[in-house]
Amino acid sequence: MDEPQGADSGPDNLLAMPRFAGITTFFRLPHQPSAEGLDVAIAGVPFDGGMTNKNGARHGPRQVREMSHAHIRPFHPTSERSPFRICRAADLGDVPINPINQADSLARIEAFMARIVAAGAKPLSVGGDHLVSLPILRAVARERPVGMVHFDAHSDTYDTVFDDPYDNGTPFRRAIEEGLLAPERTIQIGIRGSQYSADDLTFARQSGIRVVTIDEYFELGNQAVVALARRVVGDGPVYLSFDVDALDPAYAPGTGAPEVGGYSVRDAQVMIRGLRGLDVVGADMVEVAPPLDPLGGTARVGANILFELMDVLAETVL
Amino acid sequence: MDEPQGADSGPDNLLAMPRFAGITTFFRLPHQPSAEGLDVAIAGVPFDGGMTNKNGARHGPRQVREMSHAHIRPFHPTSERSPFRICRAADLGDVPINPINQADSLARIEAFMARIVAAGAKPLSVGGDHLVSLPILRAVARERPVGMVHFDAHSDTYDTVFDDPYDNGTPFRRAIEEGLLAPERTIQIGIRGSQYSADDLTFARQSGIRVVTIDEYFELGNQAVVALARRVVGDGPVYLSFDVDALDPAYAPGTGAPEVGGYSVRDAQVMIRGLRGLDVVGADMVEVAPPLDPLGGTARVGANILFELMDVLAETVL
Amino acid sequence: MDEPQGADSGPDNLLAMPRFAGITTFFRLPHQPSAEGLDVAIAGVPFDGGMTNKNGARHGPRQVREMSHAHIRPFHPTSERSPFRICRAADLGDVPINPINQADSLARIEAFMARIVAAGAKPLSVGGDHLVSLPILRAVARERPVGMVHFDAHSDTYDTVFDDPYDNGTPFRRAIEEGLLAPERTIQIGIRGSQYSADDLTFARQSGIRVVTIDEYFELGNQAVVALARRVVGDGPVYLSFDVDALDPAYAPGTGAPEVGGYSVRDAQVMIRGLRGLDVVGADMVEVAPPLDPLGGTARVGANILFELMDVLAETVL
Amino acid sequence: MDEPQGADSGPDNLLAMPRFAGITTFFRLPHQPSAEGLDVAIAGVPFDGGMTNKNGARHGPRQVREMSHAHIRPFHPTSERSPFRICRAADLGDVPINPINQADSLARIEAFMARIVAAGAKPLSVGGDHLVSLPILRAVARERPVGMVHFDAHSDTYDTVFDDPYDNGTPFRRAIEEGLLAPERTIQIGIRGSQYSADDLTFARQSGIRVVTIDEYFELGNQAVVALARRVVGDGPVYLSFDVDALDPAYAPGTGAPEVGGYSVRDAQVMIRGLRGLDVVGADMVEVAPPLDPLGGTARVGANILFELMDVLAETVL
Amino acid sequence: MDEPQGADSGPDNLLAMPRFAGITTFFRLPHQPSAEGLDVAIAGVPFDGGMTNKNGARHGPRQVREMSHAHIRPFHPTSERSPFRICRAADLGDVPINPINQADSLARIEAFMARIVAAGAKPLSVGGDHLVSLPILRAVARERPVGMVHFDAHSDTYDTVFDDPYDNGTPFRRAIEEGLLAPERTIQIGIRGSQYSADDLTFARQSGIRVVTIDEYFELGNQAVVALARRVVGDGPVYLSFDVDALDPAYAPGTGAPEVGGYSVRDAQVMIRGLRGLDVVGADMVEVAPPLDPLGGTARVGANILFELMDVLAETVL
Amino acid sequence: MDEPQGADSGPDNLLAMPRFAGITTFFRLPHQPSAEGLDVAIAGVPFDGGMTNKNGARHGPRQVREMSHAHIRPFHPTSERSPFRICRAADLGDVPINPINQADSLARIEAFMARIVAAGAKPLSVGGDHLVSLPILRAVARERPVGMVHFDAHSDTYDTVFDDPYDNGTPFRRAIEEGLLAPERTIQIGIRGSQYSADDLTFARQSGIRVVTIDEYFELGNQAVVALARRVVGDGPVYLSFDVDALDPAYAPGTGAPEVGGYSVRDAQVMIRGLRGLDVVGADMVEVAPPLDPLGGTARVGANILFELMDVLAETVL
Repeated sequence: MDEPQGADSGPDNLLAMPRFAGITTFFRLPHQPSAEGLDVAIAGVPFDGGMTNKNGARHGPRQVREMSHAHIRPFHPTSERSPFRICRAADLGDVPINPINQADSLARIEAFMARIVAAGAKPLSVGGDHLVSLPILRAVARERPVGMVHFDAHSDTYDTVFDDPYDNGTPFRRAIEEGLLAPERTIQIGIRGSQYSADDLTFARQSGIRVVTIDEYFELGNQAVVALARRVVGDGPVYLSFDVDALDPAYAPGTGAPEVGGYSVRDAQVMIRGLRGLDVVGADMVEVAPPLDPLGGTARVGANILFELMDVLAETVL
Repeated sequence: MDEPQGADSGPDNLLAMPRFAGITTFFRLPHQPSAEGLDVAIAGVPFDGGMTNKNGARHGPRQVREMSHAHIRPFHPTSERSPFRICRAADLGDVPINPINQADSLARIEAFMARIVAAGAKPLSVGGDHLVSLPILRAVARERPVGMVHFDAHSDTYDTVFDDPYDNGTPFRRAIEEGLLAPERTIQIGIRGSQYSADDLTFARQSGIRVVTIDEYFELGNQAVVALARRVVGDGPVYLSFDVDALDPAYAPGTGAPEVGGYSVRDAQVMIRGLRGLDVVGADMVEVAPPLDPLGGTARVGANILFELMDVLAETVL
Repeated sequence: MDEPQGADSGPDNLLAMPRFAGITTFFRLPHQPSAEGLDVAIAGVPFDGGMTNKNGARHGPRQVREMSHAHIRPFHPTSERSPFRICRAADLGDVPINPINQADSLARIEAFMARIVAAGAKPLSVGGDHLVSLPILRAVARERPVGMVHFDAHSDTYDTVFDDPYDNGTPFRRAIEEGLLAPERTIQIGIRGSQYSADDLTFARQSGIRVVTIDEYFELGNQAVVALARRVVGDGPVYLSFDVDALDPAYAPGTGAPEVGGYSVRDAQVMIRGLRGLDVVGADMVEVAPPLDPLGGTARVGANILFELMDVLAETVL
Repeated sequence: MDEPQGADSGPDNLLAMPRFAGITTFFRLPHQPSAEGLDVAIAGVPFDGGMTNKNGARHGPRQVREMSHAHIRPFHPTSERSPFRICRAADLGDVPINPINQADSLARIEAFMARIVAAGAKPLSVGGDHLVSLPILRAVARERPVGMVHFDAHSDTYDTVFDDPYDNGTPFRRAIEEGLLAPERTIQIGIRGSQYSADDLTFARQSGIRVVTIDEYFELGNQAVVALARRVVGDGPVYLSFDVDALDPAYAPGTGAPEVGGYSVRDAQVMIRGLRGLDVVGADMVEVAPPLDPLGGTARVGANILFELMDVLAETVL
Repeated sequence: MDEPQGADSGPDNLLAMPRFAGITTFFRLPHQPSAEGLDVAIAGVPFDGGMTNKNGARHGPRQVREMSHAHIRPFHPTSERSPFRICRAADLGDVPINPINQADSLARIEAFMARIVAAGAKPLSVGGDHLVSLPILRAVARERPVGMVHFDAHSDTYDTVFDDPYDNGTPFRRAIEEGLLAPERTIQIGIRGSQYSADDLTFARQSGIRVVTIDEYFELGNQAVVALARRVVGDGPVYLSFDVDALDPAYAPGTGAPEVGGYSVRDAQVMIRGLRGLDVVGADMVEVAPPLDPLGGTARVGANILFELMDVLAETVL
Repeated sequence: MDEPQGADSGPDNLLAMPRFAGITTFFRLPHQPSAEGLDVAIAGVPFDGGMTNKNGARHGPRQVREMSHAHIRPFHPTSERSPFRICRAADLGDVPINPINQADSLARIEAFMARIVAAGAKPLSVGGDHLVSLPILRAVARERPVGMVHFDAHSDTYDTVFDDPYDNGTPFRRAIEEGLLAPERTIQIGIRGSQYSADDLTFARQSGIRVVTIDEYFELGNQAVVALARRVVGDGPVYLSFDVDALDPAYAPGTGAPEVGGYSVRDAQVMIRGLRGLDVVGADMVEVAPPLDPLGGTARVGANILFELMDVLAETVL
């Protein structure tokens, strides 16, 4: 029988094919059309129709996929294991969104994610703009509200922007209103930047979200913030959402609404690693906009963050 | 039964998934490990270990694949058909080359291509530097020498460079010496640029290759050059090799040895279309070096040239 | 009385302020909020919510404005006049579109343009994706259908894309259906590129549009195409629409759906200049997407095309 | 009466117009020709004729203006107010410098700034190279010397460079010699990088400037440096000058003389915020050179620093 | 005796050192401090203090030198000889200009060039902005006026810009006034683009310069323009000046004042080759501004043009 | 006698020639063909044929040379001396490697370095990929094993990659096997990133290398790591090897295998300065790949690291 030609051979077998070559999938995982049999289903959500400032995040999944393929080896240096060995994961491709119709796209994303959940897998998603977290939460938190650890420069809890309830500044207000998110079990880490008015964070705070501004972050330090996050989210189900603009733009310039003065990728790695053992039900990494950083440094950072999220998700299977 | 998730749906069904999204394959064709059952097998050859000047062509297949996925629709505007409807084609992924070992890589490329030929398919390859044409010819012309229509700024018939017989300036001298290429049925179109010495083209001319310098090209014009090419290669088997540096660098700056003063992409399209009906046994498009044109214009041009070659190959099936 | 500080002094007075400095307006014209008293009102239409492939044209007006400010002097070299001297023109700023709501944006664009028309001025618009031509035509052709000279690689007469009637591939089918465009007085110049199917141009041709494919363009040559265009549009009112992807991507790579093998900027200049004397009622230049060409060459080309359109519009005032 | 078309609506009304659109002014402030009635007058100084190494800072004002327009909202997150509400500010456009005549340009800058001062406003300037601080100080410190908090990698107190007394390495020596700057009330923060000789800092130190090298900066830490700065400048009038090369090039690569090993934007934000309540009489942010960072990250950082300076200036009005 | 280490080995010996490596000199020629014994002395003139729009041409010599080192082999394909074999040429390094003092720099350039002329060599210079041609002509045409073949988009015969007589728009008016240039033996090829007023070309035409606008160029064609140029300049001494903005920006975007609609590099090659046999006394290639085209395509074009000029100069030695 | 024209005048005389101009050499040092009479011989090693992921480091020496020429002044700010005054240093150009033959290149590099050592000088090398350290060590450690302070994200002690013993992931395993490196006197600082398997660091640790992972680095802090390094290497001969990917990619994105989460350039400066007084016998700085960071920030960082290494080497002469 003929040997396969052009096989990419998966994350554990990087030397069968140079890392810059082959059909690109997330982490060199197999591409499969359904989540049946998986623990973690990775998917791109190439929608940026919620972007009110600079767009381009629709191209995020493609470049993050490529960077994860070229730059991430399978073994995690601090958990000292390959997450792909302790859980079954695959690349489900991208959600077939409708680039010019927001309502249609939100429905498609929710349906796609609901099938993943129905198959018993946990979704690990790559945006797209942050609005995509809303339909993902509709699928993941359908049965009960979830807590959230939210890394971001922005609270994303505006009521409306341009008189519109659905954009990348509003998803978590909608999620709270829809009963998907338990605000008192939600923490936002790294909030900063110029604001529209004194009321920008009012809803978040009044609803019970624990807002850690960048000033508080630097006062407390990494370890204390992790401990705080664990206290806030507790033992219940929790979703992780990482907006790449949480990071200082020196690390991640390719995003639509960058805010100077953030934390480093190292800081983010340490914090995500500190979340191991939580009851994580899904995760996303969003807002990588490749046209705004064509050389791909931001996507490479995004791929590394995705690997950290993958490792935390993998642990939930043990 | 569950519908597949994340399916990319092939070249005929572009609207099932936005063109900027999904797992990338050449022309959105299915990725399959073997050439069995195919008429045309498209593969990347990500090797640039023959590059004596600026390297980076190892990254060519990935970016050309992506550009063909995003920008090429299935229906050809002048042949007025979809090549993918008149022949069976697929993406075989990339040849698993060894990036630091030239001899090993040449052997792997030849073996990969030989399997395609053995399966009854014709290879359509994406380089990589131009040295990759040599092992491809070893597979394609194993049984009898072939003619060639060669688009390039350089003749690539040096004897040695750096005292080495195998690099991207020597493949066609080796191919003639090995009896793979019939020089009197070979034409090179667009040769130009500063040279090492008066002898640069001596071997090509003495061996019988019809060298069309850029000056002659502009004197004759497109149509006459096509007619000449058809006369030179005649009715026998012919290979097509397109070095992207054949084009003026205004169209294709992302290549290791660009030479100003070339023809346009339009010119190339017209010439390739003029080769329909020849007994084409394989084709390649080489020397796209993405790091030298990070925004990808050169790769996009390369994807379009690949589509033209595909259409000529498809016709041979009729 | 104090002299104004920081005044930019308009297109005729370039040496009061370096061309790289000052508040940027189109051609250094005054910025004014209304079209009252104007012959030509230039406005940006920063909407790209109709873009089904690579987006970013929402940033077009800003960079085209900057390039027109830095690189266009007021005197036209072949009409031998300053268009700004023979007509009253100003920069009306950008249409306040809603970046996440297509229907709302189309209404805002139409209203903005209707006010220009009501003021007795002719709109010269800078996109944005090509969908913006539809609401502009709704304002300009409200009272009677207009003819059109349309420079583009694409016919933009699809029925639906992603099952949606409004995107950047459909505006002129909608315009014909709505009675805004007289297809038999419409010519499309430069149509090319791979297509979805054999039917891509069926509607355009059956409706009576004169489609000049790129092959026909190169057969006829510039002068014959201009003569043909003048015959097609005749003496009636005519709209000019210039999609920057009409040009070969070597000249204009920064656009969402580039197609290789087009004509040059020189060709476009010659053709637009050949349209002087027609009854032009408005014009647009669309699809410049700055994130896809950050150094701005495409926007600079766009600014030059805008200047040619301005000169043709200015002549209608004489 | 007709509503204005294309109005940008100022910093408090960001949702009337997308932030990526509209006529660009600093912080979306109104553009007005004179400083009459203003507390703070923001102006660009697009002159780089004092640049002895890599030039391009003449383009700084345009790109910083654009970035401030697109990325800065009006409300400051730690002062918890909009500086534009507590003082009257406007964009005065750019100083009409003469790009090829240094002496003429210095005179124009001084005259422009003197008119601002005469109108009772404080200038907030955007360079241009650092030489522009000299004519600004001539206007601001005409009546008495001022102290200065100077963020920079370089002391800028050379006597001559290329035998010339006026370039971007000499402004503060000239300012001391001219009696504009009180050296004993001046502090320089972040001085570092390879030097010409052991005497590079001799003048600064002998004249009484408090030079905080980067080594001392990292020993003391942010808070101690702020306290030191407040002690040095005391209660008298003080000017703030921020050279973007004070920052590590990871944050601000787009500048003519970058020096590795600097502090972060976060550090700078904290320090500038620590200067609230001083008797600040004017401020500048200089040396952003857009051609050296075409994607604009450096200009975006510059816009954020400008916002911090604005907030400190605004407080002086209270 | 020890063999030299790291030797670059000159243009005839490219394979002693990869073309991307070694100390960079023009065409890999030896670097020597004086023109004694040379026929042609190549030098960089890194001055852009005459630039009234976008600067950066001070970086031209460095990047053109690098591109000539990496991409130009010694043998000319149509003259069929190595210019470096038929004449003695070397790289004299760069003129030690004063970047912040125009008058000083003009004096230094003239002195540098006068020493070359005094040594019996002909200068081949690389700018810098076009103002540098003036001090070169002062050295070359000291004894009698020379004719000129001038490739450019601009006539560069303004009287003053910003009230200043010396900038990159005025050199040839000054040269005529100073008796350096014989206007009736001068031809300008490719003049185009928007102008300040109807008088832009008045001086050129009235003084007797033969102005070939781009429209006339395209009417006549390459061969006729070459014939015309030879008639205009006749048998006397002639200087060649090539402004890279003569070319269409698709070929040479990295320049301070690009004008769309120009000719191609191929066209330029053909025209320069057509000037062989004239009594050429010196030549320059100017206005390459690397920061405006960081990937270096424009500098590579400039290096190729320089090679063509070199070949024409070499022939004058025969 | 005539004064030299175009002289660059060395590191102590920066104002004889603008820093952006002149023939480029490392630190503006004289270029000389042999190391005779030198204390430190700086050379480029433009070989990247050991690169298994993204290549381009062959271009490192050219761009690092240019950046050191443009941005490094001669006087060190913390050692308070010019290293070029306390020792005799020169630029020996680049090693004439064979870009397509690894074995040949390794031999050439070793021979080149052996001549430097034989001349009594110490080599300071600029890569090239990290494999080049192996032939350098063969020359430097020929007579006895040396210790090493190794800054890197990777241990580079794999046995084989792609079944090949020589690539940029294996040099230090080979060096230990060949008796060139004393593992118990070797320390690696900053090791991090995803790995192939649990065994990636086994050889390094078992052989006795002191591996400081990035986690340990951040726990210990700069000063403790320096002290540890001094303890590990002791009084014997020691080699310094700095892979630019030791740094966080925010500082040095232009490298083939970047790993997020590293230390800063400031950190690296402090550590290298802490090594003064050791018996350093040679040093290298490798893996700058200019095509992956065309604007040159990574090369500029590399030039600064090279200056720190130079200063440490210079001290060994005292």
